Amino acid sequence: MRSGHRRSIARLITIVENDELASRQAVANLYADTGKAHIVGITGPPGSGKSTLVNELAKEFRKRSCRVGIVAIDPSSPFSGGALLGDRVRMQDLSGDSGIFIRSMASRGSLGGLAKMTGNVVKILDAAGYDIILVETVGAGQAEVDIASTAHTTLVIEAPGMGDEIQTIKAGILEIADILVVNKADRPGSERTITALKVMIHMGAPAEPDRHHGKLAATSENNSDNMEDNATSSKTAASKGDHSPWEVPVLATVAVKGEGVSGVVDQIQAHKRFLMYSGEWQKRELARSRQEIGQLLQAEFVKQMASAVPAAEQEALIEAVAERKIDPYTAVNRLFAHAADQAWNRLGSG
Amino acid sequence: MRSGHRRSIARLITIVENDELASRQAVANLYADTGKAHIVGITGPPGSGKSTLVNELAKEFRKRSCRVGIVAIDPSSPFSGGALLGDRVRMQDLSGDSGIFIRSMASRGSLGGLAKMTGNVVKILDAAGYDIILVETVGAGQAEVDIASTAHTTLVIEAPGMGDEIQTIKAGILEIADILVVNKADRPGSERTITALKVMIHMGAPAEPDRHHGKLAATSENNSDNMEDNATSSKTAASKGDHSPWEVPVLATVAVKGEGVSGVVDQIQAHKRFLMYSGEWQKRELARSRQEIGQLLQAEFVKQMASAVPAAEQEALIEAVAERKIDPYTAVNRLFAHAADQAWNRLGSG
Repeated sequence: MRSGHRRSIARLITIVENDELASRQAVANLYADTGKAHIVGITGPPGSGKSTLVNELAKEFRKRSCRVGIVAIDPSSPFSGGALLGDRVRMQDLSGDSGIFIRSMASRGSLGGLAKMTGNVVKILDAAGYDIILVETVGAGQAEVDIASTAHTTLVIEAPGMGDEIQTIKAGILEIADILVVNKADRPGSERTITALKVMIHMGAPAEPDRHHGKLAATSENNSDNMEDNATSSKTAASKGDHSPWEVPVLATVAVKGEGVSGVVDQIQAHKRFLMYSGEWQKRELARSRQEIGQLLQAEFVKQMASAVPAAEQEALIEAVAERKIDPYTAVNRLFAHAADQAWNRLGSG
Repeated sequence: MRSGHRRSIARLITIVENDELASRQAVANLYADTGKAHIVGITGPPGSGKSTLVNELAKEFRKRSCRVGIVAIDPSSPFSGGALLGDRVRMQDLSGDSGIFIRSMASRGSLGGLAKMTGNVVKILDAAGYDIILVETVGAGQAEVDIASTAHTTLVIEAPGMGDEIQTIKAGILEIADILVVNKADRPGSERTITALKVMIHMGAPAEPDRHHGKLAATSENNSDNMEDNATSSKTAASKGDHSPWEVPVLATVAVKGEGVSGVVDQIQAHKRFLMYSGEWQKRELARSRQEIGQLLQAEFVKQMASAVPAAEQEALIEAVAERKIDPYTAVNRLFAHAADQAWNRLGSG
């Protein structure tokens, strides 16, 4: 697998997706080989042309001799495990190149499950020697925020004239962006969208501590009136060893024609250099490890609780809550007390 | 609060949003008074005119002498706690009516946190005697699926001609729909969208066990070619005491003109009767209790782990994982072992 043999990689990913126990073993084994890839999260609303742009970015990275992994996630399809229609088009376009590995994933069950699985697939591609891993998510909801938070660099894609309601959405998603891209920039309204995004970045947003690697502390010291497509806006990356802040660029692309794509890749690479020099890279690795350990702890706890309290007893409590005989907080206290008793008995007999 | 005094309700909701401990106490106290309201989840992509439709639905329910609670959620705004622009318009439109209570919520931090808070706000409105509670979410991602799963009835709103990418999203979101609404039906392409939705319902989708109250087992026994706007499509609600299945209707509305809104309310009320007669209502209450207890258990566990293992020790493990010195699974095993030791010591000294 580590030599980059595609079929071995695909097989390992299938194991990770389907076999919890084997997955743990596999990830534990390859973990020491991870930490080298540059993980780029790419998100944005449907219709922004994300997939096309991701394909073009992949081609541009290939020109620069980087091996590229693509993980395409659709959290809005919790039930269908299959590949999306767009993936087939994508495969035709890119699959001839052995330096590109593509995997699409649909959410099966919980969002937490998807985030964990995505993390493991990224680790496999990282250990297999892919230099850059593009993690693409559909939509612009909390799912994307969570998945983006595991990336080193987050691209947010917008398209011109997507209606007023989109404007309100941007407020939340903007704050996770390291790079903003207005795709389909040959469409009417693109200048207005670019201007609006720049204004929003300039205005900044109230900082919220301990979220997203301190990226939120926006400043308005940049008073440039430059409205050219690829001008940058000021946003402080409030990192410890901060010398100069990262300027969130707003870039215009027409992905179907390949226009502006090279500039986006330039900025992705510039952001990596920024992360390295500022100490942000390590901070993001820490944040990611913290999040992952938290998720694994919860999963482990659920397993242990299930084995500590008999299913029939759990069901009886759930029914009592559904019938309003007891409230959910009381039910949870009883389950915990029961699990503690069990632990006591086990320890006592051990 | 139980007499429906609006200011008391608002104050209690603010407590639930801000004070974890007081929130637990409040919910435990009012829980016995819940379980009477009909909870309706409303979801759909940005631009589908959801908010306008929700307003019109509220007005129509008021005409039918129902008291209406509205909870508007924006999971894509994790950072801003404030009200959305649209809410102010909404307030002007509806706030004169004392039989309507409106609250908008933005995600603060985790999605799990939002789902829990939403559940508690719904409980407050339920206990305060609101007959119908409309829970509106922006977008069409996993967040919406999760929040919708706590509703008795789920409406999915679409709009005509929202681009091809929307089509792929529908596949997932369709399966949680009890009622489908094509809003902005006076726009070009609306007939095509209605037809497409009907075809998708007729095709059904692979059933997945234990998800969404068994709503997924779609059948294709309905071979009607009826293309009228408000025709129904067949979808089996595979409930235990099932006599006749629920037919997922595809309804056309023009919410800004109030057109078709009354028909949607008819279907919402019909769905409630279906739930009652078929035994589905109780099944959904059970499913909701199960989900809520699971969430509370995890939150409680996180709290206990934090008190069992010193922060410095947790940090050291997180750093070791970030530096690839140990893998995350090993780290989690160590944390669990440590917590178990602590429990042992406490039990031994107690």
